[in-house]
Amino acid sequence: MTIQQFTDYVKKMQHYEEALNVIYWDMRTGAPKKGLAQRSEVIGTLSASLFDMQTSEELGELLLALEAKKSDLDYVTLRLVEEVRKNYDQNKKIPAEEYKEFVILQSKAETAWEEAKESNNFELFLPYLEEIIQWQKKFIQYWGIKNGSPYNTLLDLYEPDMTTDVLDQVFGDLRESIVTLVQKIADSSNKPDTSMLFKHFPREAQRELSLEMLAQLGYDFDAGRLDESVHPFMIGLNYGDARITTKYDENDFRSAIFGTIHECGHAMYEQNIDAKLAGLPLATGTSMGIHESQSLFYENFVGRNEKFWEHNYERLQHFSPAQFGDVALGDFLRAINMVEPSFIRIEADELTYPLHIMIRYEIERDLFNGDLQAKDLPQVWNDKYEEYLGIRPETDAMGVLQDMHWSGGMFGYFPSYALGMIYAAQWKHAMDKDIPHFDELLEKGELLPIREWLTEKVHQYGALKKPFELLKEATGEGLNAKYLADYLQEKYTKLYQL
Amino acid sequence: MTIQQFTDYVKKMQHYEEALNVIYWDMRTGAPKKGLAQRSEVIGTLSASLFDMQTSEELGELLLALEAKKSDLDYVTLRLVEEVRKNYDQNKKIPAEEYKEFVILQSKAETAWEEAKESNNFELFLPYLEEIIQWQKKFIQYWGIKNGSPYNTLLDLYEPDMTTDVLDQVFGDLRESIVTLVQKIADSSNKPDTSMLFKHFPREAQRELSLEMLAQLGYDFDAGRLDESVHPFMIGLNYGDARITTKYDENDFRSAIFGTIHECGHAMYEQNIDAKLAGLPLATGTSMGIHESQSLFYENFVGRNEKFWEHNYERLQHFSPAQFGDVALGDFLRAINMVEPSFIRIEADELTYPLHIMIRYEIERDLFNGDLQAKDLPQVWNDKYEEYLGIRPETDAMGVLQDMHWSGGMFGYFPSYALGMIYAAQWKHAMDKDIPHFDELLEKGELLPIREWLTEKVHQYGALKKPFELLKEATGEGLNAKYLADYLQEKYTKLYQL
Repeated sequence: MTIQQFTDYVKKMQHYEEALNVIYWDMRTGAPKKGLAQRSEVIGTLSASLFDMQTSEELGELLLALEAKKSDLDYVTLRLVEEVRKNYDQNKKIPAEEYKEFVILQSKAETAWEEAKESNNFELFLPYLEEIIQWQKKFIQYWGIKNGSPYNTLLDLYEPDMTTDVLDQVFGDLRESIVTLVQKIADSSNKPDTSMLFKHFPREAQRELSLEMLAQLGYDFDAGRLDESVHPFMIGLNYGDARITTKYDENDFRSAIFGTIHECGHAMYEQNIDAKLAGLPLATGTSMGIHESQSLFYENFVGRNEKFWEHNYERLQHFSPAQFGDVALGDFLRAINMVEPSFIRIEADELTYPLHIMIRYEIERDLFNGDLQAKDLPQVWNDKYEEYLGIRPETDAMGVLQDMHWSGGMFGYFPSYALGMIYAAQWKHAMDKDIPHFDELLEKGELLPIREWLTEKVHQYGALKKPFELLKEATGEGLNAKYLADYLQEKYTKLYQL
Repeated sequence: MTIQQFTDYVKKMQHYEEALNVIYWDMRTGAPKKGLAQRSEVIGTLSASLFDMQTSEELGELLLALEAKKSDLDYVTLRLVEEVRKNYDQNKKIPAEEYKEFVILQSKAETAWEEAKESNNFELFLPYLEEIIQWQKKFIQYWGIKNGSPYNTLLDLYEPDMTTDVLDQVFGDLRESIVTLVQKIADSSNKPDTSMLFKHFPREAQRELSLEMLAQLGYDFDAGRLDESVHPFMIGLNYGDARITTKYDENDFRSAIFGTIHECGHAMYEQNIDAKLAGLPLATGTSMGIHESQSLFYENFVGRNEKFWEHNYERLQHFSPAQFGDVALGDFLRAINMVEPSFIRIEADELTYPLHIMIRYEIERDLFNGDLQAKDLPQVWNDKYEEYLGIRPETDAMGVLQDMHWSGGMFGYFPSYALGMIYAAQWKHAMDKDIPHFDELLEKGELLPIREWLTEKVHQYGALKKPFELLKEATGEGLNAKYLADYLQEKYTKLYQL
C-alpha cells in the first residue's frame, strides 16, 4: 500500500515537472514576447506547488516508512526511494526562508553578471558572486560534507560520488597529454584552410540536412521533434517525448549540424530508457557526465569521424553546392577538426575543450576546499589560461565573466563536460570489442548497432544505476582518462601529420 | 484584504488554466505521439488540482465575504465576483461523485460516437446519447431552471441570458428569408465555375499568404503565432499570447486562407482586451456568440468582400500563378461565394450555414423543453434537412452523427455559431455610420480603423460587459436578425444577379 502511495505521489510531482518543462520548451522555441510576463507567473505558481510537494511532511513520512522496510523493496523501488530521499534532503535541509532569499539573490546575481559581462567590469559582479559563494558554503553545511570535503558535496549534486581525488588524477593525466599535443600542433606548419566553413549555407537546407542526420543517427521522431532556439538544447519531457532544438547560423553551419548531432545523443539516451521506469524520476540520465557522454560520443566519435563524412559528404555538398562543391573531403575533415587555443569555452575545439574545464574545476575546488577568494578570480583565471592554453584573455568579458553558471550558484557542474568526454572514450574503447567494424558502419550509414550498444550498456538503465556502476559493468574498470588521451593522440597526430 | 486574497486566488486558478492550455496547444500542433499517453496523465493531475481550487471551501467563503459588501466593490471586482460565482455554482452544485461518473461517461460516449460515425450506425451511439441527455437534465435540476425553461439554463452557459423566446424569433425571421434566397439561387441558371478552387496550391505558399493576411488584418505577432493543426483553432493563453492555427490543404486553399482570417478575428478580440483585466478570467470573450461574431465579421464581411480581394487578388495570383493567373477577379469572387445546400455543417457556405444551426437548435430545444426522444433524432434530423435545405442525408454519418458536440454533453452551444453571424451583421450596420468608407479601406488594405472600432465597442471590455449590454451600447438595440438578412439579400442578389 505505501509503495503504491509513494509511487503515485512521486508520479504526481513528475507531472508538475513535465508541465513546467512544456512551458520552458515553449518559451524557448517561439512563445510570443508579450505573453512572457504572465507565463512567468504561471511558472511561479506551479513551481511553488511542486516545491510544497517536494518538501511535504507526507513525503517525509512515506520515505521513512519505506526506508524502514528496505529489505522488502524491489530494486526499482529501492533506487527510487534513494533518489527521492536525496532530493528531499537537498530541498528540506535548507530552511525555506533562506532558500527564498537565495532565489532572489540568484536572480539579482544573474542580472549583475549580464551587466558586468556587457561592460567588461568584474567589480559589478564581485559582491554578488561573493554572496552566492557564501550561500553555497552555508548550504554545504546544511547538506553535510560528502566524501571528505565541501567541494565533493557540490560535485555529488551533478555526478554522484565524484570526488576531487578522482578528478585531480584524471584531469592531471589528461592535461599533460593535451598540452603537449596542442603545443606540437601550434608548432606545426600544417594548418588547415577553414575558409569554406564560413560561407553561406541557407537555413532551410541546414534544417533539411539536420533532419536527415537525425534519422540516420536513429532519433525517433515519434518520440521527439526538432525546433530552433537561441541556444540548442535537449529536453526530456517524458518517456516518449525527448525534444531537440538547434540553431541555424547561415554563416557557420557547424552550430546547427554538430549541435543537432550533440543533442541527438542526449535525446536517444532519454528515448531508450526501459519502459518500466516510465513516469518515474529514474527515467532520465543518471548524471550530468553520463548524459554528456552520450551527446559527445555522437558529436565527436561519430560526427567528427572521417568515415561518417565519407558517407555524408555528398549530401552536405548537395545542400550547399557552392560552398563545398570544390572542397575535397580531406580538406573538409581537417577544417572541422581544426585545433586552436581560444578564449571562449563554448567555441573551443574538441582537443582544447577539456583545458577550459580543468581551469574552471581548479578554481571551484580552491574556492571551496582551499583559500582562493572571489576577488582574485580574474588574475587566477588569466594565469591559468596562459599556463594551459598559452593565451591570456585581454578582458574579463572574454575571461572569467564568460559563463553564467556561477551567477546561478552552479558550482560543481563544469567537470561534467570533461567527464562526458572521458566516459565517451571509455564507451568507445569497450564498444570496439563488440563492434570491431565501427568505422565500416559509419561508412555505410548504418548506425543502429551503435545506438543499440549504448542502449544495452547505458540508456536502458536511466538513473537506476549510478555512473561508476555503469562504467564498471560496461568497461570492467573505473574512470580512466587514458582512452580519451589515446584517442586524441592518435586522431590529431594523423590529422596534423605530427 | 479579502479583495486581494480573492484576486490572488482567482489568478492562481488562471495560472493552472494557462498551463493546461499550453499543453493543449502543444498536443495539437506537433507533440510527438509516443509522449501523449503520459501527457494525458499530466493533464489529469493539473485538472484535478484546478478542480479542487474551483470548488474549495476557501473560495466559497471568499465569495460570500465579497457578496456581503457588494456596494463597496469597484465594477471590475463586482463582475469578477459574479463570473467566479457562476462558475463556482456550476462546479459545486453537482456532487463530485456524480460529476466524476459523468466525465467517465463523456469519454466513453465520445469513443462510441466515433465508432458510430465511422460505421454509420446510430444505434451504437444511442444508449450513450440517452445517458448524456439524462445527466444534462439532472444537472439542470442541480443548477436550477434559468429564465423559465430547462434549455434556457443550457443556453446561458454559453450565451449569458439567451432564451428560446429570443432565438425562436430571430431564427424564425432569418430562416424565411434565407430559404427564399436559397430557392432562388437553386432556380438560377447563373452558376459559378468553382473548378479553380481545387487546383494545387503549395503548402509553403499558403503559409506565406496566411502570414501576409494576418499582418494586414492587424494581428499582433508579438502576442501570438501561427501554426498548423488538423482542425484550425485560436487559443488565448494569456493577455499577451493569442495563438492561431490553420490547416493547409493543397487541393483547397480556402481552408487555410479563410480559416486563418476567421481565427484572426478571434485572436484580435483576445489581443485587444483592456490591460486592467490581465490575469483575470474576465480577460476573455464575453460569450461564445460574441467571440464568433468577431471571427465571422472578419471571415465574411472582410474576407469574402469584393473590395478586400481587389486589394489582395494580385498577391493570391503571385502565390499560385498557375491556379489563378487566368481567372478574372469576378469569377474568383463568385466561386468563393458559391451557394449550395450541403449536408455537412462545417463545409457549408455563408448563406446556408445558419440553416444547419437552426436545425440543431430546434432539436436541442425539443429534447430539453419538449418531448423529443433521442431515438427519434435521425428521422427528425433528416426531415428538417429536407424541409430547410431541400436535401435529405442518405446516411446518419452525413446527418445526425456528423458533429461531436453532443457526445461531450455540449447542448446549448450550437446557437452561438448563428448568433455570431447575426451579431456580426449588427456590428457592420453600426460601423457603417462611423466608417462610411469601409469598402475603400478594404480596397487600400488599410484595415486598422476596422479593428480599432471593434476594439472600442467590443474587444476592450473582455467579459466585463454581457452580450446584450455590448450590443445595446454599440448599436442602440437588442438582437436583430434584420441586418444579417438584409446583408445576405443584397450580397447574393447581386452575385447571382437574381
